[in-house]
Order: sequence, then structure tokens, then C-alpha cells
Amino acid sequence: MLFEILMRSCIHHAWQSQTLALPNPSVACMVLSGNNEVLALQAHAKAHTPHAEVLALRQAFNALSPTPYPARLDPLDKEANYNFLAKNHAGLFKDCTLLVTLEPCNHFGKTPPCASLLEQVRPKKVIIGALEPSLKAKGGCDRLKKAGIEVLSGVLEKACKDLLIPFTCLESKGVFNLFKIATRLDGSYQGAISGQESQIFTHNQRTVAKNLIISGQSVRLDRPTLNTRFATPPYEGLCNVVILTRSTHSFDRTIPLFNAKGREVRICHQVEQLPLDQGFNVIEGGWVLLESLQEQIDMLLIHRNSSFGGSEALSLGPRPALNRRFMPLHTQRLGQDILAWFA
Amino acid sequence: MLFEILMRSCIHHAWQSQTLALPNPSVACMVLSGNNEVLALQAHAKAHTPHAEVLALRQAFNALSPTPYPARLDPLDKEANYNFLAKNHAGLFKDCTLLVTLEPCNHFGKTPPCASLLEQVRPKKVIIGALEPSLKAKGGCDRLKKAGIEVLSGVLEKACKDLLIPFTCLESKGVFNLFKIATRLDGSYQGAISGQESQIFTHNQRTVAKNLIISGQSVRLDRPTLNTRFATPPYEGLCNVVILTRSTHSFDRTIPLFNAKGREVRICHQVEQLPLDQGFNVIEGGWVLLESLQEQIDMLLIHRNSSFGGSEALSLGPRPALNRRFMPLHTQRLGQDILAWFA
Repeated sequence: MLFEILMRSCIHHAWQSQTLALPNPSVACMVLSGNNEVLALQAHAKAHTPHAEVLALRQAFNALSPTPYPARLDPLDKEANYNFLAKNHAGLFKDCTLLVTLEPCNHFGKTPPCASLLEQVRPKKVIIGALEPSLKAKGGCDRLKKAGIEVLSGVLEKACKDLLIPFTCLESKGVFNLFKIATRLDGSYQGAISGQESQIFTHNQRTVAKNLIISGQSVRLDRPTLNTRFATPPYEGLCNVVILTRSTHSFDRTIPLFNAKGREVRICHQVEQLPLDQGFNVIEGGWVLLESLQEQIDMLLIHRNSSFGGSEALSLGPRPALNRRFMPLHTQRLGQDILAWFA
Repeated sequence: MLFEILMRSCIHHAWQSQTLALPNPSVACMVLSGNNEVLALQAHAKAHTPHAEVLALRQAFNALSPTPYPARLDPLDKEANYNFLAKNHAGLFKDCTLLVTLEPCNHFGKTPPCASLLEQVRPKKVIIGALEPSLKAKGGCDRLKKAGIEVLSGVLEKACKDLLIPFTCLESKGVFNLFKIATRLDGSYQGAISGQESQIFTHNQRTVAKNLIISGQSVRLDRPTLNTRFATPPYEGLCNVVILTRSTHSFDRTIPLFNAKGREVRICHQVEQLPLDQGFNVIEGGWVLLESLQEQIDMLLIHRNSSFGGSEALSLGPRPALNRRFMPLHTQRLGQDILAWFA
């Protein structure tokens, strides 16, 4: 039961940066001492930064080693951290148990695989949630077993697999389309809604997305900027914006989104013209837009703010006629908002 | 960090039966072995049944003792389980750590207090979330310390206190008014909505409530039964129903709620007539009812089903004009629904 509770905590931690590591999966790793004290909990929260296993071993090194982890090693540097741990572990982790939501990778890229690092640092036990679905990265589990490390896999496997949906979607189909909506408690969704923590999350997500797709109605009513000003760390780039509108009236070009440098803004008049066949796309809109795109949507993310719409008239328009059903995967508090993910 | 993660797990477990133990607080308790293995996790889920500490020690006894816990002892019998553990612990728990979301009670009622049981079974350590707010039950923490047991209190104190809101409300003001609403993803809330697990929860809640308050409009449109047919274990009693209606038209008496035996149905034409000053009342309704009652509402519970309203016209009526703001306390998946609690 202890390992299930701790794996649940890893899963929860990984969801906090769900989609932000794309095209990589969201993965979390925990390191336990021989007495099952939690020494580290880390997630892989951005591509081109160290995997969760490396970050967690780094944190655990500091808890176990009489000499501190060298401060000069940037925590975001994949190679430097990997190599330091491989050379300097000095048997520190021999009584440790690692929990990982995903089988450690076995794929040689810019750095050698995590499975090879674990082979070298030799923890006592590795507990795995889901097996690696990617052909090129699988085999980590077998590698650890051959090295004589005790391996237990399939702990909360279903929940760990759910965590991988954006990654497996993008990997297997070449596209992952996320529909995102922000609502208030009463279901209203016009105007600015989300709390600060939610905005930071959304802006971080935009730094990873290929296209941001939005309805012409939202552009006209909300006059959005659609940039990444709240991203952490600060981010200069902008994702491309695609506006879906049936109207042939031109847009007021003083709406801020049109005036950001280095961004492409496309206007589409038909669903078929939308770039929904490639990459990670975030579609922000209301239920009517979801209805139009329902066949192409892979996941749904609702940010629900704890406010009400005030005394303005409430008009949600026609209800969506949806042929498909979304199932809740995960829910989390984020400041004054509640985020809920559905697939 | 281990104890915080495990306390978080206790808190989550206790929320699953939030309000169901009223007039007692929702409390969860975990027992860890000397090696921090989780031996037990239990919640106090109903008044007049054993406290979480007794249930958890019972479960841990079975994991530690060479002789099994006697099957003849009904797990719902407060006295029998308390007395068995006090007499037969045989030092089994001497290396154990207990985590409890609330300070163990120090109040002599039908059974002696939990603090006295812990004094006798002598775990190595007791980790406490929130201190007991009730004057008559406090002092458990001091009692344990005097007995030489290591005590750590204040672990995730804020979250553990949030868990106590229904209890402290009822205890300090003599009344706890919970506003409950079931909605779909698109914000619509007419008709039958909740999934089976949600219905079971709602029916269990009705077995504890003093009054169920509902708007005349809901009675006319939904023609509800408002009984406890899904309660677990099966429950014969019915809570009283109070209908708030501005209309002076009489109700169709074939609506099922009017035909349950042993129930009182009152009709009120003004908010001031509602019995909102005593006991645990559940108010089920839409946002307009919440607006009328906002000053009297202590907590808000939203059951959100993962469905949409279909293609019928969506009319949510006027938005509520709320002067107060609800903050999210907890969110949990329950079958196909997501429950969110606000205060």
C-alpha cells in the first residue's frame, strides 16, 4: 500500500506539468531511502531538460552524500547531470528504491538512457507504473532486471498510462489536439476568467504548442493578446494563431493578437482548413467550437474558476450536440481554479 | 516529506466521507510499521461507529499479529473493538507511527477516549494534522506527550483544518448549511445528472441530514423522490423535505416525494421561514436558490458529471448575483463525476 500511495503522489506531481514536456511524456520519479523516507520527488517538465530520474537522483544525492552536489551544474543541463551522477554516485543509492511513473528509457539520444544510469548507480529496487509505449525507448525494465536490480512494474498502471495520453497520441498519430476552456462555477465562460496560477499554466502550454486555434467570436468579444507573458521562465517566442470564423467581415486589426511580432495569424473559414493533423495544438473556445471539432479532439481541459458571472444576462448559446463522451482522468486545484482533464 | 505525502493521503481518504460522520468530524488515521510500511488506512465515516484510530489499529493488528483479529467483533462496534485493542495489543504497535488528521479525542463518552487507548497501546510516534477545536475533546496531544509518546503536530495543518469545517460549523453555531448542485460539463443542471457513485454519496448524505431543502421549481420540473434508496448500508429513514416556492399554486401530489411514509414535507413561501438555523441541512437547487440563501450557506458542493446537455435549448436563467466568494477546498473524482467542495 505504501508504494501505491507514493506512486499516486508521483502521478499527481506529473499531472502538474501535463503537456508541458511535449513531445516528451510527463513523468515523475521519487527516490526513497532504505527506511522508505522520501528523499526526492521530481518531474520531467520540459523537453531538452533532464529526465525525472536524473533530477530525482540529483535531489537524493544532496540528501545522502556528505559532499554537496556541485552548485555549478545547471539543473537544466541533461548531459552534465547525467555524467556527474554516473561518475560520482559512489554507491550512495544502494539501499534506495526508485518509483517512476514510466519505465526508464532505454534509448541513446544526446545522453545515454536512464536505464543505463540506473544500471550504474544500482538502486536496490525500481518500481514502475506504466511500461514504455515507444518502440525506440523500450527495454529499460529488462535491462534493469538483467543488471540484478529488483523491478516491480504495473503499480497503478492504468493511472500511469492515462498520464501518457498526450505523448502516445502525438507519437502514434503525429498530432495531439487539446481543447481548453475556462469557465466559472455557473458555467459562464465569456471574458477574462482564470486565476493567476491558471494563466501561468496556460502561457507555459502555449510555449510548447504548435498552433493556438480560437473562434472568431472569441477574438471579437474578448480582444485577446494570446502571448506568453506569464510563462515561467520568461519566453520570447509566440505560437501561431489560427482563427476559425464563418463571417467574412474583417477583424479589427487593433486587437492585440494581430500586433505581436514574429507570429503568423491565419484565418480559416471552414473546419477542414484548420491545421489539426500535425503537432500539439491547443484549441481555446466555447462549447459550440468543441461541437464543430469533436471528432478531432483528443483531450479536454477545463479550468474552472471559483467565481460567478455576476448579474449580467447569462447566455451560453445552444448546447453542444456531442456524439462522444469524455471521461475524467485527473483533477487538481490550481490556486483559485480547479483543473479537470478528460479524454 | 514522507509524512506530508501520507498525511495528504489521509486527508484525501477522509474527504471521501465528508459530512457523513456528522455531528462528528471526518477523520482519517494511518498506521505505519517501524519500516514505514503502510499497515492501515481508515476513516471515521459514521457517528456511533468506532473512531478512525480504533479502525486503523484493528486493521494494523491483523497485519502484525500472529493471531488474527477475532472475526466475531463487529467492525462497527465502538466498545468491543476499543476494549479488545486495549487488552490484547501485547506491545504489537511499539515500533509503529500513527498519522491522524485530527488530534486524538480526550473525551469520555460511551467509550474512553482515543488518547487513552493510544496511551495503552503505546505506538512510537503520533503525527497529528489539526488540533482538536472542541473544548470537551481536546487535550489528547498533551496526554500522549505525558505518556512519553513522541508527538508531532501541525502536519498539513491548514488542509486538516479545512476538513473540519462542517464539524466546527455545526459545533460552534449549531447549524451547518451545505448547498449542493449537480451540473454537466456545459453548466446545465436540469433533470437527472449524477452518476451512480455520486447518487450513493448523496443518498448517504441524506441519511445524516436534518432537512433537505429544495426549490418548488425543481420539485415541479424534476418530480423527485428524494429518498435514500441508494444508501449503503440500506437505510429506512427519510429526512424531512422543505420546499421553497414563491408560487401559491398547489403541488401535484403524485410527485413521489409526497408519498413516502414517515416523512414531513413543509412548504415555505419565504426564505425567512426556512429551517436554516439548526442542524445539518442540505439545500439542493440551482444558482438562483443559492443567490437567495447565500448569507446562510456554509459550504458549496458541486457534483459535475462528464456529460453535456444534448441538443435541447440551454437556458440557465439569470446569473446569480453573489456577494460572497467561495474558495475551493477539495476536489475528487467519484466515478464519472468530479466532486468539488468550496467554503
